[in-house]
Amino acid sequence: MTTRSLFLLPGDGIGPETMAEVAKLIDHMNAKEGAGFVTDQGLVGGSAYDAHGEAISDADMDKAMAADAVLFGAVGGPKWDDVPYEQRPEAGLLRLRKDMALFANLRPAICYPALADASSLKRDVIEGLDILIVRELTGGVYFGEPKEITDLGNGQKRGVDTQVYDTFEIERIAGVAFELARTRSNKVCSMEKRNVMKSGVLWNEVVTATHAAHYADVELTHMLADAGGMQLVRWPKQFDVIVTDNLFGDMLSDVAAMLTGSLGMLPSASLGAPDPATGKRKALYEPVHGSAPDIAGKGIANPIAMIASFAMCLRYSFAMIDEAVRIEAAVAKVLDDGLRTGDIMGDGARPVSTAEMGDAIVAAY
Amino acid sequence: MTTRSLFLLPGDGIGPETMAEVAKLIDHMNAKEGAGFVTDQGLVGGSAYDAHGEAISDADMDKAMAADAVLFGAVGGPKWDDVPYEQRPEAGLLRLRKDMALFANLRPAICYPALADASSLKRDVIEGLDILIVRELTGGVYFGEPKEITDLGNGQKRGVDTQVYDTFEIERIAGVAFELARTRSNKVCSMEKRNVMKSGVLWNEVVTATHAAHYADVELTHMLADAGGMQLVRWPKQFDVIVTDNLFGDMLSDVAAMLTGSLGMLPSASLGAPDPATGKRKALYEPVHGSAPDIAGKGIANPIAMIASFAMCLRYSFAMIDEAVRIEAAVAKVLDDGLRTGDIMGDGARPVSTAEMGDAIVAAY
Ligand SMILES: CC(C)[C@H](C(=O)O)[C@@H](O)C(=O)O
Ligand SMILES: CC(C)[C@H](C(=O)O)[C@@H](O)C(=O)O
Repeated sequence: MTTRSLFLLPGDGIGPETMAEVAKLIDHMNAKEGAGFVTDQGLVGGSAYDAHGEAISDADMDKAMAADAVLFGAVGGPKWDDVPYEQRPEAGLLRLRKDMALFANLRPAICYPALADASSLKRDVIEGLDILIVRELTGGVYFGEPKEITDLGNGQKRGVDTQVYDTFEIERIAGVAFELARTRSNKVCSMEKRNVMKSGVLWNEVVTATHAAHYADVELTHMLADAGGMQLVRWPKQFDVIVTDNLFGDMLSDVAAMLTGSLGMLPSASLGAPDPATGKRKALYEPVHGSAPDIAGKGIANPIAMIASFAMCLRYSFAMIDEAVRIEAAVAKVLDDGLRTGDIMGDGARPVSTAEMGDAIVAAY
Repeated sequence: MTTRSLFLLPGDGIGPETMAEVAKLIDHMNAKEGAGFVTDQGLVGGSAYDAHGEAISDADMDKAMAADAVLFGAVGGPKWDDVPYEQRPEAGLLRLRKDMALFANLRPAICYPALADASSLKRDVIEGLDILIVRELTGGVYFGEPKEITDLGNGQKRGVDTQVYDTFEIERIAGVAFELARTRSNKVCSMEKRNVMKSGVLWNEVVTATHAAHYADVELTHMLADAGGMQLVRWPKQFDVIVTDNLFGDMLSDVAAMLTGSLGMLPSASLGAPDPATGKRKALYEPVHGSAPDIAGKGIANPIAMIASFAMCLRYSFAMIDEAVRIEAAVAKVLDDGLRTGDIMGDGARPVSTAEMGDAIVAAY
């Protein structure tokens, strides 16, 4: 029997509650379908810091590196606001991304029909929305050196971060975007600020060259990232795949997620390069939403983004397409049935807890 | 008689057309009210490049430095897409900002009641919206060194930009935000990415210290810039003044502007520090919208953002508050009368040209 190893990092805040619902689904698939998932669990973020003074331990990093896939909940909260920079909760996530070389972050922004009215945007603007933001995740200003605060004397300090991109980093993320576009509407829009940033000039040049060399069948457009933010708000359906750098991707994917009104529903996948020998790629799956410390521990968080992240895991790490589709259909069904956690509550719907939502999805699977 | 010197830089695209409507208002105020405006005009952007190979000439820079205020239209267009980086149209604007030391960029995002339906957001989300984004304009990744593309050999290049902030730069922009908040709802939200950027850590620290030392009466909150983008989409009315750095300010102010549905209406002011001797500050006023090359030369552009920028000029450079209020009231009146350029056209409104809109505003003034 195939075994499939999953390393679970629930993290902080609502992470553990939402991860518990995925664990139900995993148990169900093991029991009913012999899916062969073998899970292990570790600590990340504030909870890891509390346990051993680092946002992730070396032992847990080793397990993450060895697993077929990592499922990640969320990190952070006011409790750790004054933790030193190198130990802050986010450092655990950033180390996972960097050490696992997860350069490709896939963030779908889709509008669930049952939730179109939850958006602050007009229904016709977002109904049927289905875009994919492909964000570069291991480069740019997140990791470039120098990254430091220096004391200049006279009461003055200087804070410095460095945005760095090399040709190969842009080439490989552009390749991911073009490949994915071919499985969708065959359109890629690349966003940067080439009018202000040299890294943007290089980005634009390399995306254009990659397109010409290997993906001329895909429609490619370019947009300045600030104009891109505007256009996402004005008429998001003009986009199919958007490819952009680490920092712009952070901003633009959050705006895109909020457009849909379905923030508590949106998953993401962070992928490495396929191993030339085995074809396997390292991968981490996490909801787009954060740790929501204000509602943590109350059993009211929406587990759907975490469950949808597991569906992405089935799709991208295990090629279990049927199962992924069935999970997505189960989510759509419980929403059609009117089940809602508090964040997506609407008139006439049935309020449910985190666990009730998870149970209903397992039952509908 | 007082003379007030204005240096006009219409720039490219729809810049000249919209500036022509401000010129009408200036002539009117000189003739009817002895306002004493003395104007001169120069070239910036692509039109300056075409004339003398630079995005702004030294002679025009000197005039901009000497004037009481600069009125700026817009720069750029496909014609200049392949101009070398140092000569590209935007370089003219960036040089003006840097050499005039215009560190404080004020970008109001207000929703004109008559236009609430033009927004892609629901009416209740944006009706009555009135927020002010205070963007740092002479620092950060826009100007930090190194900023370069280097050839690494092997077909690899490296693009680098550097985000740099010193304590004093953060202090002075925070001061501007707090002062402005006192004239409004007394609330400032500071946005950065302190969870990823050292410059964000310093930003947060200095804004907090400036607040404690001099502005403890103002309510201060902090938000991560990506969450800020989300919250702008979700419920923008939670904000009053937002203070942020150059690049986040670029992104967030564009998103905020698009929320209002009134992009063709929104002005901005870029201010230097007051001269210790005279109290005067260098200043440049420009619409938030760009050069819109697709509609340039057709006489259909909306001149209101340019006219509203002139109203900001009266307010901030000449303390002509009554006149500024009268211009703003004239704009509101012509909108209430149903006059609309194409970009803000709606059911039952009266379509007018750029010149007709300008004439109507002069008549209503
Ligand atoms: C938690 C934080 C470090 C992270 C980021 O900035 O990348 C988050 O905002 C995200 O988008 O995944
Ligand atoms: C034209 C460009 C250089 C400029 C910027 O990025 O600052 C523009 O987008 C703006 O916001 O004023």
